[in-house]
Amino acid sequence: MPPIRKAIVLFSGGLDSTTALAIARSEGFEPLALIFRYGQRHAVEVEAAAALAGALGVEHRVQEIDLRSMGGSALTSDAIDVPRDRPEEEIGRGPIPPTYVPARNTIFLSFALGWAEVLGARDIFLGVNALDYSGYPDCRPEYIEAFERLASLACRAAVEGGARFKIHTPLIRFTKAEIIRRGVALGVDYSRTWSCYAPVFRTGRPPAACGRCDSCQLRRKGFREAGVPDPTAYA
Amino acid sequence: MPPIRKAIVLFSGGLDSTTALAIARSEGFEPLALIFRYGQRHAVEVEAAAALAGALGVEHRVQEIDLRSMGGSALTSDAIDVPRDRPEEEIGRGPIPPTYVPARNTIFLSFALGWAEVLGARDIFLGVNALDYSGYPDCRPEYIEAFERLASLACRAAVEGGARFKIHTPLIRFTKAEIIRRGVALGVDYSRTWSCYAPVFRTGRPPAACGRCDSCQLRRKGFREAGVPDPTAYA
Repeated sequence: MPPIRKAIVLFSGGLDSTTALAIARSEGFEPLALIFRYGQRHAVEVEAAAALAGALGVEHRVQEIDLRSMGGSALTSDAIDVPRDRPEEEIGRGPIPPTYVPARNTIFLSFALGWAEVLGARDIFLGVNALDYSGYPDCRPEYIEAFERLASLACRAAVEGGARFKIHTPLIRFTKAEIIRRGVALGVDYSRTWSCYAPVFRTGRPPAACGRCDSCQLRRKGFREAGVPDPTAYA
Repeated sequence: MPPIRKAIVLFSGGLDSTTALAIARSEGFEPLALIFRYGQRHAVEVEAAAALAGALGVEHRVQEIDLRSMGGSALTSDAIDVPRDRPEEEIGRGPIPPTYVPARNTIFLSFALGWAEVLGARDIFLGVNALDYSGYPDCRPEYIEAFERLASLACRAAVEGGARFKIHTPLIRFTKAEIIRRGVALGVDYSRTWSCYAPVFRTGRPPAACGRCDSCQLRRKGFREAGVPDPTAYA
C-alpha cells in the first residue's frame, strides 16, 4: 500500500469543494481543508465550512486574509449588489458577473502553495468547474495550468527538492449534475453544504439560502438535472 | 504628454523596494505603495514603510495577511533562527536560507494583482534582485515571467478587457551597488530605508539594524562597493 499523502483542499463548505474533498479522500489523500475568512459578506460560510470539516473528521485551518479593504466584488463590498433572479441560461454565458472577486483564486492558491510547502504536501485540490459555473476566468483549465507551472518555479521544495506541485481540479469538466451524482456515490451529505451568496437570516433558526443568486440557481438546477432531491433549506 | 498611469509597487520600505518606487515614479507612474503586515518578526518594517511612503507623498495601503500561522520561515516563526555572521561569499550561493518564506512573492503578487484590477492599474513593480540576493526562488526572472503569464489568464480585466498586466522588475539584474547608485541618482534617502531581518531594540531610541543578518550584510557590501557612505544605524 502506498503511504498516505497529504493534500491541501481549498474548502468553502460549498457543494463543489465538499465534493472535491470527498474525491481527494477517495484517491487516498489525507486532506487538510484550507478555509479562508476573507471578509466575504456570506461569512456564515466560514463557520459552516469549519463545522463540516470537523464533522467529516478532516483537519482544517482557517486562513485570515482581508479582501474587504480591496473590494471590487459583490461578495466583499456592500456597495455592489449580488445579482438575483437572472435567467438560468444567462449564468456563466454573459459578461463576468459582479460576484467575481479580483484575483481570488490566485490569492487562495498562493496560500495553498505556502501551506503545501510547509506541510510537505505536493497536491492541492480545487473544486473549480468550467461548465455550470459563473464564468469566472480563474476557473478555466488554462489558468490552472499556468498556476501549476508557476508553483514549480516559486518554491524551495521545487527548486531544491525537485518537487512537482499538482493542482487537482477533478470537477473542472463536470456539469453540476455530474458533480452531485459523483458526490452522492461517495456519500457526501449535501444538506450540510452551503452555496448561497446572500444568506437570509431568520431569528431562532439557522440562515436559509436565498434561492435567487447565481450560486443557488446553479445548485438547484444541478439537483434537478441529477434527479437527486435538493436538501437545501431555501428561504 | 501621456496620461499618468497608476502602478502598484510592492513596498517594504527596504533598500530595494524604495529604489523600485523611485524608478516607477521616474518612469511617470503614479505609484500605490502596497505594504504587507504578514506577521513578520521584524514588524518594525511595516511602520517604517508606511512612514516612508507618507514622507515621499505616495499613497499607500497596508494589506493584512497572516503568514505567522503558516510558519516555515525564520521571518515568521520564532522557532527558526535568522542566520547571522555568514561569510559574505556564501550568501545567495548555498542552499536557500531559512529566511525564505514559503510562497511569499506569489502571495504578495496575487494581492498586487487584485489591487491592480480594482484600481484599473496594469503595472506592478517588484524590487526583486537575482544577483546580490539571498537565493530565493521567487526572485528569478523565469518565476516573474510565469507570474505575468498567469496574471493575464486570471483576471476579468485581461479576459474581458484585453488588459496585459506587466510585472516590472527594474532591479532584477543589478548588483546591490548598482541599485544604490541608481537610487542615489534618483534622490533616494537610504537613511530612511530598513533592511534588517533582526532589529535590535534600544530603550528610548529607534531600533538599530543588527548588521549581521544576510540582509544587513548585502546592504553593507552594496554601499561599500558603490562607494557611497552607508547611512544605516547599526547596533
